[in-house]
Amino acid sequence: MDNSSIEIITTGNELLSGITIDKNFNWLCESLFSLGAQVRFHQCISDNLDDLVKALNIAQKRSKFILFTGGLGPTDDDLTRESASQFFSRKLVLNKKIEKEIKLIFKKRNRPYSLINKKQAMFPEGAEIIQNPKGTAPGFCIKDKGSFFYFFPGVPSELRAMVQKSAFQKIKNLLVKEKNFFTSETLKVFGITESELAEKIKKIKSKNTFIGYRPHKFEIHLRIISTGKSKKISKNECLKIKLRLIKVLQKYIFTDKDMTLQEVIVNLLKKKKYTISFAESCTGGLISNLITNVPGSSSVFGLSFITYSNKSKNLVLKVSNKKLMEHGAVSKEVVSEMARGLNRISESNISVAVSGIAGPSGGSADKPVGTVYVSYLINKKISVKRYSFLGDRESIKLRTALEVLNHIRKNIL
Amino acid sequence: MDNSSIEIITTGNELLSGITIDKNFNWLCESLFSLGAQVRFHQCISDNLDDLVKALNIAQKRSKFILFTGGLGPTDDDLTRESASQFFSRKLVLNKKIEKEIKLIFKKRNRPYSLINKKQAMFPEGAEIIQNPKGTAPGFCIKDKGSFFYFFPGVPSELRAMVQKSAFQKIKNLLVKEKNFFTSETLKVFGITESELAEKIKKIKSKNTFIGYRPHKFEIHLRIISTGKSKKISKNECLKIKLRLIKVLQKYIFTDKDMTLQEVIVNLLKKKKYTISFAESCTGGLISNLITNVPGSSSVFGLSFITYSNKSKNLVLKVSNKKLMEHGAVSKEVVSEMARGLNRISESNISVAVSGIAGPSGGSADKPVGTVYVSYLINKKISVKRYSFLGDRESIKLRTALEVLNHIRKNIL
Repeated sequence: MDNSSIEIITTGNELLSGITIDKNFNWLCESLFSLGAQVRFHQCISDNLDDLVKALNIAQKRSKFILFTGGLGPTDDDLTRESASQFFSRKLVLNKKIEKEIKLIFKKRNRPYSLINKKQAMFPEGAEIIQNPKGTAPGFCIKDKGSFFYFFPGVPSELRAMVQKSAFQKIKNLLVKEKNFFTSETLKVFGITESELAEKIKKIKSKNTFIGYRPHKFEIHLRIISTGKSKKISKNECLKIKLRLIKVLQKYIFTDKDMTLQEVIVNLLKKKKYTISFAESCTGGLISNLITNVPGSSSVFGLSFITYSNKSKNLVLKVSNKKLMEHGAVSKEVVSEMARGLNRISESNISVAVSGIAGPSGGSADKPVGTVYVSYLINKKISVKRYSFLGDRESIKLRTALEVLNHIRKNIL
Repeated sequence: MDNSSIEIITTGNELLSGITIDKNFNWLCESLFSLGAQVRFHQCISDNLDDLVKALNIAQKRSKFILFTGGLGPTDDDLTRESASQFFSRKLVLNKKIEKEIKLIFKKRNRPYSLINKKQAMFPEGAEIIQNPKGTAPGFCIKDKGSFFYFFPGVPSELRAMVQKSAFQKIKNLLVKEKNFFTSETLKVFGITESELAEKIKKIKSKNTFIGYRPHKFEIHLRIISTGKSKKISKNECLKIKLRLIKVLQKYIFTDKDMTLQEVIVNLLKKKKYTISFAESCTGGLISNLITNVPGSSSVFGLSFITYSNKSKNLVLKVSNKKLMEHGAVSKEVVSEMARGLNRISESNISVAVSGIAGPSGGSADKPVGTVYVSYLINKKISVKRYSFLGDRESIKLRTALEVLNHIRKNIL
C-alpha cells in the first residue's frame, strides 16, 4: 500500500446502466487535486453485496484513503452498511442518538417515520459517525489496517457538505505533515497536433514536475503540476517549467488562464478598440455564436451575415454573379468579394468571410469536402487562406471557426 | 468469473485529477444497457504501468468482457499497449500495414509523421486489430483465459465508431444465445419538466418494461426498455408501452428516432418545400448554426443576419430608430420590425427574429436577464412571443434557440 493513495468507490446500478450520470467522482477528484492530492484509483460497483465486499478488499490492499459514496439509503438495494459490516466483521448496531435525530427530521418534513428508516441509524460497531447536515443518512468512518474508510451518501449536496470536515481534513493534514506541496498551471495551445507538441517539448523534464496533455476539441491543454517541500519551492519549480514551455511553444499558446480562445480574442479586440464582423457560409453562424458567447462581446461585435446560397451572397454582399459562376462559391475570388461586400456594410476594423464545403456532399476532386477559403480584411489589408480539413460536417465547421479565431489572434497581438 | 460480466476500464491522470470529465463511461453503460446488457464493474486507473497491469488482472478474474479506453496515443503517458503487453506476456510488434495507413493520414492532413507516431502501429503479438475510421490510433482485441479484452482510444468519437462492430457485436451475439431479448425505444420530449412528466406518466407501468428518464440539456429523453423470451415478445411489449406514452405526451414528443430537434425541423421544412431565415440578436448565430449543422440544410436555409447592435438593426433590417428609442431593442415592436425587415430581403416562407437579454448584464426590473422576444412570420402571418428564462448566458441562448425551433415545429406540423 502506498502511504498516500486515494481511492474512490461509487455504487449504484443506475450509474452502471447509464441512466444517471455520476456527479461525485469528478467533483471529488477536482477538489482533491486542488488540495494537492491526486486520486489514484476509482471503482464503480453495482448494488451487489458480494461485489461491494470484494471492492473494499481490493481498495484496502492498495489505498490509504478510501472514499465510498452511495448506498446509505433505507431501501433494499442500499447495501453499503451491510457490505462494510461484512468486510470489517463488525456487527451493525443501532445508534439511538442518531435515530432520534432522524425521527426529528421526519417530523419536521411532515413525513411518516417507518421501520425501514431505522436502517439509517445502524452503523458497524465502533464506527465514527459523520454528521449529515443536509439529509437523513449520516456517514461513517472506519480505520482498519492503516487505511481510512469514509462512507458517504450519494446525493451530491449531502456528500459535499460532509466530506470537507472529515476526509478532506485528514488528507490535508497528511500533506502538510509530509511537506508535500503542489502548484499547477495550464497552458492552452492551438494549431499543433499532440505528437508535434510532444516532439517539441520532449526535452523539458523535471523529476518534480508532471506535464499532462488534455486534448480539448482541437485545442490541447498542457497541465504543469510541480511538487515541493514548501509552497514556495513548488511554485518556483512550476514557473520555471512554464517559462521553458512558453519559450518553445510561443505563438501556439493562446492563454495561460482559464479562458477560451474566443474570450482571448474579445479581450484583444477590446484592448485595441476594434470591431469585428463576419460573412459566414459553411460555418453557418458558428463563429459569430462563439464570439457572442463571451459576456460583453457586444462592444466588439459588429454584425454578421450568414449567406449560404449564391443568391444571398449576391443579394446581400454584392458578390457578382459572374464571379460566382466562373470560380464557384468556394474560391479565393468569391471570399475576397464577400469580405469586401461585408466591410462596405459593417465598416468594422476586421471583416472576415468564410466559404467552404462542410460536407457530407458537395465535394469534388478539385475541392474535396473540407476545403475552406477564408478572406481576412484586417485594417484594409486583405489576405486569403485556403484550408483543408478532415472530419464530419460539425467537426469541419468547428475546426474552421477555431482556425479563423486563432488567425485573427495572431494577427492582432 | 460470471459468464457474462462486463467491465469498463478507463484511464488517465486527467480523469483522476478532475481536469477532464469522462465522456465514455456513461455512454458505454447506456449503449450496453439498451442492448440488454448491464455493466457490472468499472475501474478508472491513473497512467501508471504497474497500476494498469494490476487492473487488468482484477478484471480478468471477474469479467467476461473488458472494455478498456484511453492511453493509445503516441506520448509517454500513453501506457495502454505497454500494460497489455506486460499483462498478457506478449511482445509489442510493428504492424507495417497499419503504419502505412497512419502515414497516409498524416500526409492527407499535411502533418509531419514523426518517430513517436510509430508507437500507434505497435500491437501485442497476435492481437486482433480494430480499425479506427476517425483517427490515427487503431484499437485491438485479445482473448485470454475465456475473457475478451477490447482496447479503444479515449477520444469519444473514435471509440463510438469502433465499439459497435467489435465489442457490442460480440456481446449481442451472446445475449441472443441466452434467449434474453431486449427491445428499446426512445421518445424525445421538449417543453415539460421532469416532475410534470413523471406525474403525467405515473400510471404507465409494466413488470417487463423499464422506463427511464434522461435529461439532455433542455430536452428529456424517455427510454423504454422491454424484455422477453423472444425478440417478438419484447418488441410487442415495448410498442404497447410506447403507444401509451405517445397518447399521454402527444405534442411534447418531437421524435421517436435518433434525431435532433433541428434535424426534425429541416425534414419538415423539406417536406413542405419551405425556406427559413433568421434575424438573431441575443442568440448571436446559434439558431442558424444549429440548423446548418444538419446535412442538406442548404435547401431550406435562406439567409440570416446577426444584428447585435441597434445600429445594425436599423442599417440592415430597417428597424426605425424611433421604435428602437421608444421601446428598446428587446421589445415586441422591435422584433416585429426585425422579422418584417428580414422577410423583405429573404423572401422566405418563415422569417424569425429574436431579441433578448442573455446577460450577465443588461437586465432591468422591467426586463430582467432572460427576457426574450421572438417574432415569427410564418406564411405572412406574424406573431410575437415573450419568454422568461433563467440561467447563465450560454444557457439562455440555448434555451431560446430550442424554444424557437420547437415553436416552429409545432406550427408547421
